[in-house]
Amino acid sequence: MDDRIKNQIAFALEIDKAKNIFRQTHLSSNGRNENDAEHSWHMAVMAYLLKEYANEEVDIAKVMLMCLIHDIVEIDAGDTYAYDTEGLKTQKAREDAAKERIFSILPDDQKAEFTALFDEFEANETAEAKFVHAVDNLQPLILNDSNNGGDWRAHHVTAGQVYQRQSKTKAGSEQLFELTDQIIRKHIQKGNIQNNS
Amino acid sequence: MDDRIKNQIAFALEIDKAKNIFRQTHLSSNGRNENDAEHSWHMAVMAYLLKEYANEEVDIAKVMLMCLIHDIVEIDAGDTYAYDTEGLKTQKAREDAAKERIFSILPDDQKAEFTALFDEFEANETAEAKFVHAVDNLQPLILNDSNNGGDWRAHHVTAGQVYQRQSKTKAGSEQLFELTDQIIRKHIQKGNIQNNS
Repeated sequence: MDDRIKNQIAFALEIDKAKNIFRQTHLSSNGRNENDAEHSWHMAVMAYLLKEYANEEVDIAKVMLMCLIHDIVEIDAGDTYAYDTEGLKTQKAREDAAKERIFSILPDDQKAEFTALFDEFEANETAEAKFVHAVDNLQPLILNDSNNGGDWRAHHVTAGQVYQRQSKTKAGSEQLFELTDQIIRKHIQKGNIQNNS
Repeated sequence: MDDRIKNQIAFALEIDKAKNIFRQTHLSSNGRNENDAEHSWHMAVMAYLLKEYANEEVDIAKVMLMCLIHDIVEIDAGDTYAYDTEGLKTQKAREDAAKERIFSILPDDQKAEFTALFDEFEANETAEAKFVHAVDNLQPLILNDSNNGGDWRAHHVTAGQVYQRQSKTKAGSEQLFELTDQIIRKHIQKGNIQNNS
């Protein structure tokens, strides 16, 4: 087995750990917490399914791959909950160190490719990155909606916080933002999201 | 919300159930059993990473999507272990019924697209389907290898059975089959796979 394939397989084995990085979101039917591998899989299928709603035309292979790898850095950096203000301050430094360690397992050309793709996601400037951010927001939203907003209630999340987070959705997809807005309004009305802006 | 997006979101919510369909394979570090969503995510990343080893050039977007959806039918049909002879007899009928029910949640055009993609995977005739089968075999193999062949030992799997299963790998990728063969030989030597053909 030459070094190239050996390193590729070592990386494949390393990312298995994403299956043990748990998020705040719960599976539908008030299930257990979701992990990063499941979240990324769900996002990639949803991105393909909903690609017609992207504001700009997207390269769907790039979108799917970005969905699949965007959370790999959390193997070292851990999941930072969208409403965890303290954690958000150190998130970038933690994720940069993780990116360097984990992607360095790959052969150089693929390290460069995966690093660039992750950086593109983070910079959120291309059509693909914006659409992936929209789907990254929508996927936990539909789970939480199906669970009667349990995750929002548990964290006493306010309407201001939800709209702040979902603001990125609009840049990727006006139509998915419209859907998001309908869901949020319903949960404000139900009292699952606190209406104190 | 119009019917089209409503049906797309309903499908997205339905497939969340794949996260609760557990396989015989265990996560690395002798972890818990793996579920279909995790397996599909892992396969899609590996397929992208290892695409240079496909026997024929592949449409990588199609390959990734095929990885992502190939096990969705197991939401109804359950996972059939590769070495479960009884289960394998009824697998096709169970999966066909599941395919009809689950993909019918989608708008007609996407139902047709996803059904065709699943059928293409099953028929295993195109370059993409063959490569996805190779990755479908390799992904649990590297986990099982990392766990010192625990899944083979638990099921008293023989060399004949393993090679029978892995025969599809060669059609998708000669090079991945070579790697597979090295791993299998190691585990026969270690006694983790029974050497009675």
